[in-house]
This record gives sequence, C-alpha cells and structure tokens, in this order.
Amino acid sequence: MSERIGCIGLGLMGKPMAHNLLKAGFQVTVYNRSKVAIKELSMQGALVAQSSQAVAEQSDIVITMLPDDAAVESVITDEQGIIAGAHENLLVIDMSTISPLTATRLAEQLARHHVHMLDAPVSGGDVGAIAGTLSIMVGGEQNDFERALPVFSALGKTVTYCGPQGSGQTVKACNQVVVALIIAAISEGLVLGSKAGVRPEIIVQVLSGGLAQNRVMDLRGSTMITHHFEPGGKVQFHRKDLGIALQLARSYNVSLPLTALVDQFFTTMIANQQGNLDHSALLTILEMLSHHSLVQE
Amino acid sequence: MSERIGCIGLGLMGKPMAHNLLKAGFQVTVYNRSKVAIKELSMQGALVAQSSQAVAEQSDIVITMLPDDAAVESVITDEQGIIAGAHENLLVIDMSTISPLTATRLAEQLARHHVHMLDAPVSGGDVGAIAGTLSIMVGGEQNDFERALPVFSALGKTVTYCGPQGSGQTVKACNQVVVALIIAAISEGLVLGSKAGVRPEIIVQVLSGGLAQNRVMDLRGSTMITHHFEPGGKVQFHRKDLGIALQLARSYNVSLPLTALVDQFFTTMIANQQGNLDHSALLTILEMLSHHSLVQE
Repeated sequence: MSERIGCIGLGLMGKPMAHNLLKAGFQVTVYNRSKVAIKELSMQGALVAQSSQAVAEQSDIVITMLPDDAAVESVITDEQGIIAGAHENLLVIDMSTISPLTATRLAEQLARHHVHMLDAPVSGGDVGAIAGTLSIMVGGEQNDFERALPVFSALGKTVTYCGPQGSGQTVKACNQVVVALIIAAISEGLVLGSKAGVRPEIIVQVLSGGLAQNRVMDLRGSTMITHHFEPGGKVQFHRKDLGIALQLARSYNVSLPLTALVDQFFTTMIANQQGNLDHSALLTILEMLSHHSLVQE
Repeated sequence: MSERIGCIGLGLMGKPMAHNLLKAGFQVTVYNRSKVAIKELSMQGALVAQSSQAVAEQSDIVITMLPDDAAVESVITDEQGIIAGAHENLLVIDMSTISPLTATRLAEQLARHHVHMLDAPVSGGDVGAIAGTLSIMVGGEQNDFERALPVFSALGKTVTYCGPQGSGQTVKACNQVVVALIIAAISEGLVLGSKAGVRPEIIVQVLSGGLAQNRVMDLRGSTMITHHFEPGGKVQFHRKDLGIALQLARSYNVSLPLTALVDQFFTTMIANQQGNLDHSALLTILEMLSHHSLVQE
C-alpha cells in the first residue's frame, strides 16, 4: 500500500504540488491557513484536516511548503503542530527554502519524538511546481531519501541526494548565490557595452556563443534588454534566499564579498518598490548607478 | 585574385593564425620581433618582411596580433610602421585585445593616411587559434567588414559585426567582465557550500541542471574542485582585459562595482605568483578569504 501523504502550506508552490500528488494516485490530506486553496483541492479529492497536528496523525509522510523559517518552525512545534501529532514511522519533508541551520535544528527536535526529517528545497518556481518538473535538493538520512523517492518523482524531474540534514538547503543557498551573481555579471556587461555605444542585442548574441554563455542570459537576456521584468523569480524571494546564504556564511566564517554587495542592491530594489519584479531587474540598479538605460527613450 | 595578407605579431595566437591563412591559400607576408616563428612560417610558405612598413607595402590587408595597446600603437605609428608603408586600398585589421579608446584613436590616425581599420578581437584562446575556430568580434565600417570576411572565415567559426570603430573591442571587454564575474560566482557558491559541509561535486551537479548553469562551470567546474589550474585563459591576461574594461567604464562614467572588486582579486593573484594559472584559480582567493580549501589535505 502506498504511503498516505499530508500537505501543509498550499500557496503558489504548495497547491500545485498537492495536486500533482493526487494525480499520481496518493491519498493526500491537506491543511492551510487560508481556506480558498483547501476548497479547490478538496474538490480534486484531497482529505481536509483542521490542524497540522491532524495532518500528521492521518499521514505517513508530511510535506511542508511554507514561506519562511518562522512558518516552518511554527507548523512543527506549535501546540497543534506536527510534533503534537507525532507517531511511529512519520517522516517530515520540508520543501520550503529556509536556513540550513534552522533545518538541522528542527530535524533534531523532531528526532527527539522519533520523527525523521528531510530538507528538500526546490528550484523551478511555480511553473516547475505546476508541471511537476521541479529540481529537488535533498538533505537527511539516505534511508529516508529512498523512502521518499516515489513522492519526489511525482513532484520533480531531477532529485539529488546532497548529504546529511541541512545539505539540501545548503545547496539551494549556493544555487541562489550563483544565480544572483550571474544576473549581476550580465548587468555589468550590458551596461558597460551599451553606454559605450554597442547595441545590447549584439552583446548578448556574441556572449551566448562563447565562454560567457549562461542559462540566465539564454532565458532572460532579451527581456532584460527590453526591461520586461514579469516574474519568474521575484526579487523579494531572492533577497530572502541571499539572507539565508549570508547567515549561513557568517556562521561558518565564509566571506562572500560579491554576494554581500548584490544583497545590498536587492535591498535597494525592495526600497524602490521593485520587490515583485523578476530578479533580472537587478539590471536597473546597475543602470541607475551609471545614469544609463538600455531602453532608448 | 585574392587579397595579399600581412601578419604582424607571431606569438601564441598570431603564429597559428598566419598558418591557417597560408592553409586557406592566401599569400602571407610576416613580420615579428622574435625570429623563431618567422623561420617556421617561412618554411610553410610565408614571405618574410624586414619591418611593419615592408609588410604594409607588400599587402592589401595587414593583420596585427600583439600583446597590448602600446605594441599595436608602435607597429602602426613607428618610423618603420604601417603608416610609413601606407597605400591606397590598405586595410588594417587589429585582432589584439586592446582598449576600444585606443582602437578608435588609431583608426582615426590611419584614416588621415586613407587607410581603413577594423578592430577584431577574438575569443577562444590558442586552442581556437590553432583549430581556426575563434569567435571574432568586429568593429568598423560595414564595407570593410565584408571585404575582410574571407580572411575571418579562415581564422574563426563565429564572426559578428558589432558596430562602428571600437565596437569589437567593447564587446570583447563585456565578455571578459561577464566571464570574470561568473568565475567569482561559482567560487563563492562552492566555498560556501563546501565549508558548510556539502561535497563540491554535488553542488556542481545540481547547479548545472538548473538556472545556475553556465559554460565556465561546464568546462571548469570539475578542475576547480580538484585545483587543476592549467591554462586555458591566464590570470595575467584576464586582469589586463579587466583593466581595459575598467578604463572604458571610467571614460563613459559606467560604475562596475563587482568587476572592480574581482580586478583587485586578480591583482592579489598576480602578487601571489599566480598570474600564469588559469583564471578559474580565482577560486583560491575566495578560499583564502574564508581559510578553507575545497581539496581535502
């Protein structure tokens, strides 16, 4: 008999993920603070629970998909949280993006109640969540990882075991560092070339054919040039992720000078009401610093 | 009848390029300060001239491939330089990587003697020069670009017209900015993840499958992890190129905060006798800043 799944958190990511689990034939019990998504999933065949505790009691595997560290901690440790519903054989898979330090601490707390935990953050955004093509980075015990594979297969395309507890979140943090700095790299290149008189389309075309090629530019080069910044990956979420990376770096005494700088630029964007734009809008900060726009007025 | 080609500068790049022009059936006249390369090309069928002036006198198109701005300026303006050998219909193609500002100034100087000029820097390194697969970025008049196409075809795979005089050098500068910052991006990601306990091979594997994918990591990810820094693109040349980019940026009032920082790191590498390593050795500076090495002792 296949495992009974619980889903806590039915937002932009969590809702389509629960839907994909139902489609894959799992029994799914859901809980969410806001009731709209619950109704929708219930009509698709999900069972509805009244608390995180109830989800845990009625499930073998509980997936949490929540906005931040505080939300995950609360769902696990609150009076009517997962620990209150703990039972033998329960596995918690947190697929939110949170600090590796928080993930490790919560795993230890759950372990005291004989509950196992995996950290399994994703990349691929809401598009990947809907299509079931997420990339999933998993930290925790290898046994638990193998147990969870059928669940991951319903949600994602690439699933990678990264190491012990927290490793999934650590790899996600690395990913967000590299993506942010690549956006900054493209931005500095484009502002330099454009203000020096070359059409930015030419720059993207030439750079795409050589060592400077990168997927951000493949996907976003043309929209950066025309200032089309519909998300995609929102600035506010990427800044949250850089906050996690910088906190992790601080705790391990890792110096990240470029990441720290780009984090400041993301903060400027949020101050400028740009938090809901695609993260490639970082270009506009580099433009502002040089009083130049790629878009001809 | 096909154009007579002159080649000035027969170093790591210039020598195989002259060889490929001979192979393509062009008449090639060569001049070089050091005589070893001259002998080799003469045995392959090249004519040998005694000065840059003589090369210009005996050629329709003169290609210069030299280490820096001063060398290009000297070859063009010296007493026995190209201008001294100027004649109607002469086209100078400078394929060195120099400042767009110098390129534009030299083009203006040549124009006073009715000599046309293209700036046509390349990427692809000595490997690309030998294989005839260079990527060539061309600035200048469109007519001259079209006249030079048969020559470019013998040397490179991708040839892009970038705009007026200096545009080829500007795009090359943008390319070097983006590549340098991508190396820095990978380095920050790897040092963070590795010091936080994840195997760097896992980080490269996961990041390669998503938005963080980039060609530097595809080609150099595994050698960065094992600290194999055989060039490839040398630190000293990349620092020279960032110097050009930062000088160009200063003249156009373009602010490049990340590039300026990475340029300082390259300087530290040269101070540390790392100038002849591959530029991906920038990783070791980020490692040093965090007192951590990806390579287990």
